Amino acid sequence: MSARYLLPYAPDTIGSLPAGLDVLVWDGDGPVPPDEALRGVEFFCLPYMRHAAALPLIPRLPALKVVQTLTAGMDDVLPHVPDGVLAHNARGLHDASTAELAVTLTLASLRGLPGFTRRQDRGIWHQEFHESLADKTVLVLGYGSIGRALAARLEPFECEVVRVARGARPEERVHAVAELAELLPSADVVVLLTPLTPETRHLVDAAFLARMKDGALLVNVARGPVVDTAALLAALSAGRLRAALDVTDPEPLPADHPLWHAPGVLITPHVGGPSSAFLPRAKRLLRERVLRFERGGAAEPGH
Amino acid sequence: MSARYLLPYAPDTIGSLPAGLDVLVWDGDGPVPPDEALRGVEFFCLPYMRHAAALPLIPRLPALKVVQTLTAGMDDVLPHVPDGVLAHNARGLHDASTAELAVTLTLASLRGLPGFTRRQDRGIWHQEFHESLADKTVLVLGYGSIGRALAARLEPFECEVVRVARGARPEERVHAVAELAELLPSADVVVLLTPLTPETRHLVDAAFLARMKDGALLVNVARGPVVDTAALLAALSAGRLRAALDVTDPEPLPADHPLWHAPGVLITPHVGGPSSAFLPRAKRLLRERVLRFERGGAAEPGH
Repeated sequence: MSARYLLPYAPDTIGSLPAGLDVLVWDGDGPVPPDEALRGVEFFCLPYMRHAAALPLIPRLPALKVVQTLTAGMDDVLPHVPDGVLAHNARGLHDASTAELAVTLTLASLRGLPGFTRRQDRGIWHQEFHESLADKTVLVLGYGSIGRALAARLEPFECEVVRVARGARPEERVHAVAELAELLPSADVVVLLTPLTPETRHLVDAAFLARMKDGALLVNVARGPVVDTAALLAALSAGRLRAALDVTDPEPLPADHPLWHAPGVLITPHVGGPSSAFLPRAKRLLRERVLRFERGGAAEPGH
Repeated sequence: MSARYLLPYAPDTIGSLPAGLDVLVWDGDGPVPPDEALRGVEFFCLPYMRHAAALPLIPRLPALKVVQTLTAGMDDVLPHVPDGVLAHNARGLHDASTAELAVTLTLASLRGLPGFTRRQDRGIWHQEFHESLADKTVLVLGYGSIGRALAARLEPFECEVVRVARGARPEERVHAVAELAELLPSADVVVLLTPLTPETRHLVDAAFLARMKDGALLVNVARGPVVDTAALLAALSAGRLRAALDVTDPEPLPADHPLWHAPGVLITPHVGGPSSAFLPRAKRLLRERVLRFERGGAAEPGH
């Protein structure tokens, strides 16, 4: 008895899947299914935030054709995908939640919310001026589907949005990364949204940070290693820049890491994806991917 | 020697005012000008966040025709304005900054930022799911210029915005406050933007809060007394609702007030207005109001 699909959600909770679909449900928490149950699995959707438990299953799936993640980034998954197996990311799934967190981090940093929370805990009412997003220039680095969702959310805040991606796309007002050195000095906020690749690892190094204007805010909702942590720590400690980081390098950040207490830094523990926006969008995406696999098998391109 | 204008900014910093304008500059911090300098003042712009120092000057201005505030609300000013003197608020000036703070408070509460700040201080990395603004229903109560600015900022977040004002305005999809009891139970977030008037004092009382759905978030960027603090405290302590408050009653909130430490509350110290968005907009508004007064004197309606 072996199933064709290994999915983290029961088919009847995903909605409108064909009857009799051959599915084994494993959410990443329960016991790992035995080999005989896995023998026929062609489509494996990795349970969200359970990659550490899920990746070791891949070599035990001899019939595997498609690995489907529920994450946007696949940097941790690709090394585990055998030749001839397609790996599909969850493009679009996290747009709303991650773009929203990028705005949350930007606004909370500019408007001084961490300081107000600390004063609230001590019962201190102290009015003061803070930065507003209005009138600012926000550079969005990495302009895929999350970048578009972010720009749409930023536009009504009376700020200027500067879009940068690998290649220029004049029809979308997107600049090429080659123009970055020229664009950085005029940005008040820089939001990182790039995938982690050999080209983007340590893209934000000491030279990048030195091009940013005094007091500017770096927001990272991409991947930790896009930023050179030592270089960022130096810029923060000097009081030159501020940062709001949902991802760090290393991650999780150890309790004794100096980044936790660097001046002007706000840290959240990689929560761009896990929000109430996730589950309905994950199920919609998975349903669409399963239906496509039913129609065309692995032959049809995934994304 | 007496001036016609008493303003908080020097005319040459406001930009493009007629040469030779008869201005006395007082920013609310320096020594109060003597009576002989005030004798001819017809137009008094109250220095921002210095009303306590500025209001006692009003009875010393025998030629006064216009009191101009740099605040949206005038509840604290109107009792000090003599008969026959026009009082003009700063409609529009705080739209960007206050609407932005309302979004900041909403997002920070939903996405759990106060808790993450507290964990950051202790070096604790702990991933968890939080609410997203996406898929939520946000009821905006009070739909003037700040309400419009707020709705514009909320719209791209994939949430539904329900507008409520004193009277219905179907062409703007605005519901009448009479429909409130019916609308409240479906709102995940309720943002208060009403001016403080006899009708809105304690508008948010125990009955209002009881109509809100379990776990809903109340955001107050209006005036503290729009909410019955004791009723809100009861709902927070019961774990029934959450709140994000930029204004409180009393204000400033005393150090030993139980609201500081109520469960699920985020408090900022009335900082909707004071941000970097203020000064350029204040000067634009003041320039426009002075030019209008030059043209038409006090006879022209102010707002």
